Amino acid sequence: MRTEKQPLRLTLVAPNGRMGRAIAAAAEADGGYVIDPDHGDVIVDFSAPDALAGSLERAVRASIPILVGTTGLDDFADRRIAEASRSVAVLRASNTSLGVALLAELVERAARVLGDGWDVEVLEMHHRLKKDAPSGTALTLGEAAARGLGVPFEREDARSGRGLERKDGAIGFAALRGGTVVGDHDVIFAGPEERLILSHRAENRMIFARGALTAAAFLHGREPGLYGMRDVVGAL
Amino acid sequence: MRTEKQPLRLTLVAPNGRMGRAIAAAAEADGGYVIDPDHGDVIVDFSAPDALAGSLERAVRASIPILVGTTGLDDFADRRIAEASRSVAVLRASNTSLGVALLAELVERAARVLGDGWDVEVLEMHHRLKKDAPSGTALTLGEAAARGLGVPFEREDARSGRGLERKDGAIGFAALRGGTVVGDHDVIFAGPEERLILSHRAENRMIFARGALTAAAFLHGREPGLYGMRDVVGAL
Amino acid sequence: MRTEKQPLRLTLVAPNGRMGRAIAAAAEADGGYVIDPDHGDVIVDFSAPDALAGSLERAVRASIPILVGTTGLDDFADRRIAEASRSVAVLRASNTSLGVALLAELVERAARVLGDGWDVEVLEMHHRLKKDAPSGTALTLGEAAARGLGVPFEREDARSGRGLERKDGAIGFAALRGGTVVGDHDVIFAGPEERLILSHRAENRMIFARGALTAAAFLHGREPGLYGMRDVVGAL
Amino acid sequence: MRTEKQPLRLTLVAPNGRMGRAIAAAAEADGGYVIDPDHGDVIVDFSAPDALAGSLERAVRASIPILVGTTGLDDFADRRIAEASRSVAVLRASNTSLGVALLAELVERAARVLGDGWDVEVLEMHHRLKKDAPSGTALTLGEAAARGLGVPFEREDARSGRGLERKDGAIGFAALRGGTVVGDHDVIFAGPEERLILSHRAENRMIFARGALTAAAFLHGREPGLYGMRDVVGAL
Repeated sequence: MRTEKQPLRLTLVAPNGRMGRAIAAAAEADGGYVIDPDHGDVIVDFSAPDALAGSLERAVRASIPILVGTTGLDDFADRRIAEASRSVAVLRASNTSLGVALLAELVERAARVLGDGWDVEVLEMHHRLKKDAPSGTALTLGEAAARGLGVPFEREDARSGRGLERKDGAIGFAALRGGTVVGDHDVIFAGPEERLILSHRAENRMIFARGALTAAAFLHGREPGLYGMRDVVGAL
Repeated sequence: MRTEKQPLRLTLVAPNGRMGRAIAAAAEADGGYVIDPDHGDVIVDFSAPDALAGSLERAVRASIPILVGTTGLDDFADRRIAEASRSVAVLRASNTSLGVALLAELVERAARVLGDGWDVEVLEMHHRLKKDAPSGTALTLGEAAARGLGVPFEREDARSGRGLERKDGAIGFAALRGGTVVGDHDVIFAGPEERLILSHRAENRMIFARGALTAAAFLHGREPGLYGMRDVVGAL
Repeated sequence: MRTEKQPLRLTLVAPNGRMGRAIAAAAEADGGYVIDPDHGDVIVDFSAPDALAGSLERAVRASIPILVGTTGLDDFADRRIAEASRSVAVLRASNTSLGVALLAELVERAARVLGDGWDVEVLEMHHRLKKDAPSGTALTLGEAAARGLGVPFEREDARSGRGLERKDGAIGFAALRGGTVVGDHDVIFAGPEERLILSHRAENRMIFARGALTAAAFLHGREPGLYGMRDVVGAL
Repeated sequence: MRTEKQPLRLTLVAPNGRMGRAIAAAAEADGGYVIDPDHGDVIVDFSAPDALAGSLERAVRASIPILVGTTGLDDFADRRIAEASRSVAVLRASNTSLGVALLAELVERAARVLGDGWDVEVLEMHHRLKKDAPSGTALTLGEAAARGLGVPFEREDARSGRGLERKDGAIGFAALRGGTVVGDHDVIFAGPEERLILSHRAENRMIFARGALTAAAFLHGREPGLYGMRDVVGAL
């Protein structure tokens, strides 16, 4: 919960979208945030790629930070974001759950300490309708592990068959699909006769809206630059 | 533990093989079994495919039951086993863990009750050196689920990519590999807003030797026929 | 989903209570059930103890079955239920989740097969506000295990301290409390070097409403008697 | 695995004790360590409280570091250890598993980031003969969580009964006992609609011997002071 005296004013780019409404609900429940269509302290954009240019321009013109939660952005959008981040604080995140961001930090640390001799496997389970595998979050966690190990990120997906050889340093991925599961992620460090398992369980998609509020509070008064959820966690 | 007055005499086909020695150790620890190279009540064969013919002939000639734990058998061996089972009791098993056999029975029952609308996923984890995926035990569990659902067994292995669609009634499989894990299996029934998860954890390969003893006790005095571990569980 | 031609008519005793509204929502989503205040095929009572007498009388007078989900009933209520069950079908359940009822059946079966030499532990986790421990469902699962083992139900709660000795045949219980967890239950059979773990995860309380619909369908046309959720599972 | 050119010489105080033999076996398997009864680079004492005074004296006299793995020490031993640590490096540890030490570090970090609003629960499972609950390792993990939260360590053990209220900031503990489980630990952070779970699974007690080797390598050439396993992890 935000405990500053003045509520933080958020300008939502697509207030009637799924995430827009969720963020408004989370803001109301928290009490430390208000939605203000015109005079926001922070712009929050979870809309669509083609709205991004306008949102960035607005942030730069008003000199206020912006949270970019839009996914499916192309290289051109990447360049616009980099450009805007020279004059205002920009936080870009495909998953705004604070728990997942913390998990990624812990995974990187664990990989750094355990190093060679421990195999890293990432398991995720999502509802039966999810169409991509592994999940974007699973890949983010695998990248964090590779960074901690100090090796290039090499995926070992979808094991099936005979004569398989697990490569040293590769990160294994497995995806389960079924029912209505919101999102389970496990990162397993399997060493000689012991395992360390770091897991996250999402019970409800509202956690992404609440994490977006925390990210917005992080951005408020932040100097220009490009940030990620790991910076939000790092500042806590 | 076996509690009959007379210890059961087991004739091991390859007493110095890995499983042969494990079974001898388990028999000694239990106290209800003795190894007898010549006058066994039950023949126990965990050796190699080319020893099978001799073992079966010996069982038939002496009119005593035989436990066949050998894997990698061909169609010709199948026919020999079928033939022998007309005159003596033959139990064939690729995994003699009693816990796994019970798990398969529970999975079949759960699938029968839950039926449509629940997705079945089978997850397994084994040590980094295991070369096949999914494990034979995972496939056995998936077959049990399909039998319970009353549908043909259709596998959905190794999800990776975009635009994936989970097929109704297919059984999903995922394989994790790492460290020194002896063998973990989970069968997940994922329904609308609830999950039933049936799991087995093997801590040590000795459980297969102990399960072989229980299977041998089941065979003792059993009428001719072809049996599996599910019959052993069914009789308990 | 119910697939009969005629929707089943349910008369809800407290249609505006929490469970009443959940059952109405589940009925509408399913399509195989309608709420009918006056001419129900089955009476569904999840109200309060003092409404029970009236509900039972109504069921008996109209010769229709009744589902009693009310908790906190006293001995007098027990006698009334027993009496009513001589003329109509009465199903009494404190937890109407089908998954949990199936879990209890599987636990009883597993305990029967595994028998001595395996320790049974029941673990549950619920949200931070739950005031009783172990949960009623955990106790139901423990009773199922004791029934399967063929021993009187003896609880071993709340281990803490030194010089503890785990009693043979006792069922251990452990309760975790935190966050917003709807309800996790695990029954662990811990044997020599292997474990069988049977688990249920509730994602949302709506599963109790959906299970109540299945229970009502079970009751429709059922002969007089006193039933439980295990009978519903047994009939599937 | 230790990769220095010269193997590290370890002097074991009780070379024929359970841990002494395990450490000798681990040293031989690693290749980077040798056991030397007389001219060790590091003294390793996993013996009994009454041997400690002699071991510390020997370390101080020879100016070499000492690893103290003995448990059940009294206040007098504490003072002797503090005194010795003014002239040589002393590492004291009740659990020398590197995975558990890393887990404690991650737990402290997670508690610091998540802070209020997340409940912390520590679950452990051990074999049926373990006589104390919660395990010493579970308590160490709970203390790490309290340190991260910045609150005094307050235990909430052994929930059982009615009218229970979970205290804000208290750390909950639950202990499962059964079978032959070597040691499972889970630290659960339960927040609003999400959970972070940090777990360790020990498959074999040899992990404590291997961790003792890593601790000895940490001590070699280390300046005088009192250290713990968290310092070993912190240096990796």
